Amino acid sequence: MSSLIENLYGEIEKIQAIDIHSHVRQLEPGAKSLRELLSYHYYTELAYSCGLPKEKMADELSDEEMVPALLQTVADNYSNTVQYGWMTELCHKLFGLKDRHLTVDNWKVVAAAAAGKQAGKDWTQEVLRRGNIEKVFLTNHFSERLDGFDRKTLVPCLRCDDLVFAIGQKKTLDLLSDRSGVSVSDTRSLKKAVSAIFEYFVNHDAGSAAISLTPEFAFQAVSDAAAEPILSAALAGETLTHEQQTTLGAYGFTLLAENCRQFQLPMQLMIGVVRDAYQHGVDKGTDVVSNRASLNQYARLFNRFADVTFTVSYLSPTMQHELLTFTWIFQNVRASGHWWYTNVPGYIEQDLRTRVEALPRTKMLGYYSDAYYIEFTLPKFNMYRWCLARVLADQVQMKRLTEEESMQVARNLLRDNAFATFRI
Amino acid sequence: MSSLIENLYGEIEKIQAIDIHSHVRQLEPGAKSLRELLSYHYYTELAYSCGLPKEKMADELSDEEMVPALLQTVADNYSNTVQYGWMTELCHKLFGLKDRHLTVDNWKVVAAAAAGKQAGKDWTQEVLRRGNIEKVFLTNHFSERLDGFDRKTLVPCLRCDDLVFAIGQKKTLDLLSDRSGVSVSDTRSLKKAVSAIFEYFVNHDAGSAAISLTPEFAFQAVSDAAAEPILSAALAGETLTHEQQTTLGAYGFTLLAENCRQFQLPMQLMIGVVRDAYQHGVDKGTDVVSNRASLNQYARLFNRFADVTFTVSYLSPTMQHELLTFTWIFQNVRASGHWWYTNVPGYIEQDLRTRVEALPRTKMLGYYSDAYYIEFTLPKFNMYRWCLARVLADQVQMKRLTEEESMQVARNLLRDNAFATFRI
Amino acid sequence: MSSLIENLYGEIEKIQAIDIHSHVRQLEPGAKSLRELLSYHYYTELAYSCGLPKEKMADELSDEEMVPALLQTVADNYSNTVQYGWMTELCHKLFGLKDRHLTVDNWKVVAAAAAGKQAGKDWTQEVLRRGNIEKVFLTNHFSERLDGFDRKTLVPCLRCDDLVFAIGQKKTLDLLSDRSGVSVSDTRSLKKAVSAIFEYFVNHDAGSAAISLTPEFAFQAVSDAAAEPILSAALAGETLTHEQQTTLGAYGFTLLAENCRQFQLPMQLMIGVVRDAYQHGVDKGTDVVSNRASLNQYARLFNRFADVTFTVSYLSPTMQHELLTFTWIFQNVRASGHWWYTNVPGYIEQDLRTRVEALPRTKMLGYYSDAYYIEFTLPKFNMYRWCLARVLADQVQMKRLTEEESMQVARNLLRDNAFATFRI
Repeated sequence: MSSLIENLYGEIEKIQAIDIHSHVRQLEPGAKSLRELLSYHYYTELAYSCGLPKEKMADELSDEEMVPALLQTVADNYSNTVQYGWMTELCHKLFGLKDRHLTVDNWKVVAAAAAGKQAGKDWTQEVLRRGNIEKVFLTNHFSERLDGFDRKTLVPCLRCDDLVFAIGQKKTLDLLSDRSGVSVSDTRSLKKAVSAIFEYFVNHDAGSAAISLTPEFAFQAVSDAAAEPILSAALAGETLTHEQQTTLGAYGFTLLAENCRQFQLPMQLMIGVVRDAYQHGVDKGTDVVSNRASLNQYARLFNRFADVTFTVSYLSPTMQHELLTFTWIFQNVRASGHWWYTNVPGYIEQDLRTRVEALPRTKMLGYYSDAYYIEFTLPKFNMYRWCLARVLADQVQMKRLTEEESMQVARNLLRDNAFATFRI
Repeated sequence: MSSLIENLYGEIEKIQAIDIHSHVRQLEPGAKSLRELLSYHYYTELAYSCGLPKEKMADELSDEEMVPALLQTVADNYSNTVQYGWMTELCHKLFGLKDRHLTVDNWKVVAAAAAGKQAGKDWTQEVLRRGNIEKVFLTNHFSERLDGFDRKTLVPCLRCDDLVFAIGQKKTLDLLSDRSGVSVSDTRSLKKAVSAIFEYFVNHDAGSAAISLTPEFAFQAVSDAAAEPILSAALAGETLTHEQQTTLGAYGFTLLAENCRQFQLPMQLMIGVVRDAYQHGVDKGTDVVSNRASLNQYARLFNRFADVTFTVSYLSPTMQHELLTFTWIFQNVRASGHWWYTNVPGYIEQDLRTRVEALPRTKMLGYYSDAYYIEFTLPKFNMYRWCLARVLADQVQMKRLTEEESMQVARNLLRDNAFATFRI
Repeated sequence: MSSLIENLYGEIEKIQAIDIHSHVRQLEPGAKSLRELLSYHYYTELAYSCGLPKEKMADELSDEEMVPALLQTVADNYSNTVQYGWMTELCHKLFGLKDRHLTVDNWKVVAAAAAGKQAGKDWTQEVLRRGNIEKVFLTNHFSERLDGFDRKTLVPCLRCDDLVFAIGQKKTLDLLSDRSGVSVSDTRSLKKAVSAIFEYFVNHDAGSAAISLTPEFAFQAVSDAAAEPILSAALAGETLTHEQQTTLGAYGFTLLAENCRQFQLPMQLMIGVVRDAYQHGVDKGTDVVSNRASLNQYARLFNRFADVTFTVSYLSPTMQHELLTFTWIFQNVRASGHWWYTNVPGYIEQDLRTRVEALPRTKMLGYYSDAYYIEFTLPKFNMYRWCLARVLADQVQMKRLTEEESMQVARNLLRDNAFATFRI
């Protein structure tokens, strides 16, 4: 079994992957330094959770103060985690670390090696080459400019959260007017403005739209007439009630779906994050999951926009089986990746097994890195590749799939389905 | 481990199974043709989900038009699934297919072989012999006649959905009057009519009652007095409010439970299907699951009818642990099978492991095929047998069970408990 | 793999464990007899669930009547369960049983051996020595006296259920007055009384507070002013409305958290039990689980009492991933053990794998026995040790952990984190 897994991994490694969701910055995809990599919220939030005070990780501290404090917390507390495993894998594969762990004793050598690499002009391409990844999707606010980078490698993706959850805020509406060149004064002009944004993104090679959604969000189509007075109130600077916000957000979502249809842009849904649950957490380390969301909150969306493709990720495994049944039945739904708190081998393998057994191999997007720096795409994809090798080896051993068939599944998951689904 | 699994499978295969739930038609248990087998909704819904237009699968098309279109969709999209695996296993074991897959190239030969077999008078018995299955439960509407077939092999089962969810419809009430010979005009006569139906079924060797339930259904006992005015309104052809329907449905359920008690008939509950979720789906391919149902919605039922046996299946794995605790504690509750969207090895093995570890081996019904044609009972049971072999092998390897003890568990699950539970 | 698991188990066995939750009675930790062990509710509830009438297990029956009836029910029904496995393991390791099972034929010999052992003065210490357990936490009602036993071995733990769910009952308030020496007449004196209880417990080496909570319980801070009129009504003997009870209970919980803060006592939360769901069940065999609870009901608690440590167990696996994310992010939250209906290898291994992969090894409490008699601590811990060995072996085989690193995880889970978390 063990050698079968290794054989399959070897074959899987040869498939050039498409990373369909990341937070990599288009103009500066790599980190500046080892210290910046260690400032990734996964490490600071876990260190804080283990008791390291925020002051010990503050930006204004020197590397010599911050890095050893963090690495000591790792060694004492969370060196067992896969999250930390990404860092060591990355240091091994990209920065020549020879020791098993990155430690208070060896970090300076690694930091020096990293600095040399990261300053190189070709660094992003080198990371992608070593990770065997062809394209990495970005996360772009509607107000962003999409010039000055290779859009065939770093694929723009319109992140829509503000157009739903902050659409009633003056800041959002002003920015929308500015960016679209359409002065937003009513639903008619709002629609024009949103359409202009989509047009700009599609003309700049956007691969998809994307949005993360709260557990409470339930799609309902909202008409212009219903939205009009609420939008007026928002434009007049009035504070909206919770109900008004909900209605206006649903209206915003309706516009998004309509534009996805018009521009034939698929929409990536990431469902179920509870934002700002922890008052005391570090930056980006305050969110949790809720087991209360149901994919049935989206049934009307999938029905109404039957010609728009929705790729769906959940934060809570309590939605796992729902997504399996929706992907099974709905032509326009795809099961996608393993998001954030489920991006852990124990969850990945469980979900992956049932997906591979019950879903068409063409209706799943295998994985995305969600990385903030290009360096993390490599260890995260390798972690997934091991999960995939283990799950497929089990299928081969059960004689459900031949090795060759299992590789077809792997190609679908890592690469082919991304091309079939997104505008790339 | 691998050889232990195979040894156990070999022993498990020898246990003649009882299939406690299917949709097989008593007067025509087998399919007429390979094409009819391929028209099973599992295949059409997956093909549609992968983009094959409904017109390409229409009844009026010739086999030469429909079958290759479907098989090409399979090959291009979902040949990895267990659902499709049932078809190839069936073709291997029943129709002499030698190739690994059923394809656009070999289907005609298989179709010819199938036609020959399926026309045989003894076909149902041959399938059951090869699948080593002794009895297969049917799904019978209350209006059905139960004559003209071997009721020791094909066991009648009173399907009660309409007596709960459509009891307020004139069509149901008229049919009930017709079939029972009792003119339904009030709760008193309704009770007589339902009782007459039960009597007919029990006199015709019914093994159990059965019902599928929505995620929202919550049992409440409803008195005659509370039901009377609603039933009157329904009989008068009035449209019932949602609340009235809920109350009348609960009343119908109360009558069912009372008759199960009176006739000592166990009731099979299948909980949690969301009907007609997908507007665009193919026939029978429009339902999904919801993670919102809780078995606590049935606690009052199990308490009130403590002398009626309820076998329980769920559609959502979020009820898995609830059912484990209810079966553990409640004398009259049994964990039953792996229904529909959970009839996938990855779910089966997970559920089975914890059931085998924590539940009395006499309180579980192992499996049912849910098959529409008798041919599918064979591959579905074989799939389950492999799951069972794998789970039991793991227990044997942990030294929790000896091989002999594991076989006792298998006999309970596949056969003995069906006899102990149902009227067979 | 198999030999790796056994090697790891051998090492894990050498770690002296801390049992952080049990129902062992401080003055009589062991059972009086084999029959008393067999009267543990796990055995009576399963026997009853399998159809053995309560009368056959009644206290007034002789051993010769009760024990064979129970053991026959086991043999016929639930000899496959891990629950019963604890009994045989215990008989093998503590009472010299040589046969694989405890049966109607051999029980008398075992009972005689047990009686001899259990009468020994040193019995508790011998059990703990053989189970390699150093300390066992108790469950003590606030009204209990904590003298007359070795509190370094049997660690007091203030069980707080009544101070939340029964705080509006005259009996509770009277007992509180009696025990604290503070006459409770308003919120001011109530606070004094509760504080006196905490002081007594802390002065008597209490390791923690603990409470089990219903699925509906949601923390809300309640002010003295809001609680005052409800407490007055309760003191006047009035029956409280459901809403009043909820508010007063939340107030009680607020007081508990404030005292935990003041006395630096961690609080063990056990979330999600549905009490008295089965009207017909045996004593202590009437509770089930609900999939409806969410850890988000406690977010305000964890935020408000950021300086109090909360160790959290759930009864429903639908909270598993929520707890993972809360432990990941919240400094003051710990994932703890595998409670009651999840204390089954299939659930333990699943949860343990994702915890070991994603959570700091210092933020998890591995296991507690929940035992009613000291004898059960041994087989339950051994069962857990096997689960731990299997999960860690898998990590070692994936090369995520070295054997040495996996043993550090084991030490954290079984021992070190208990010292770091509790007042011991």
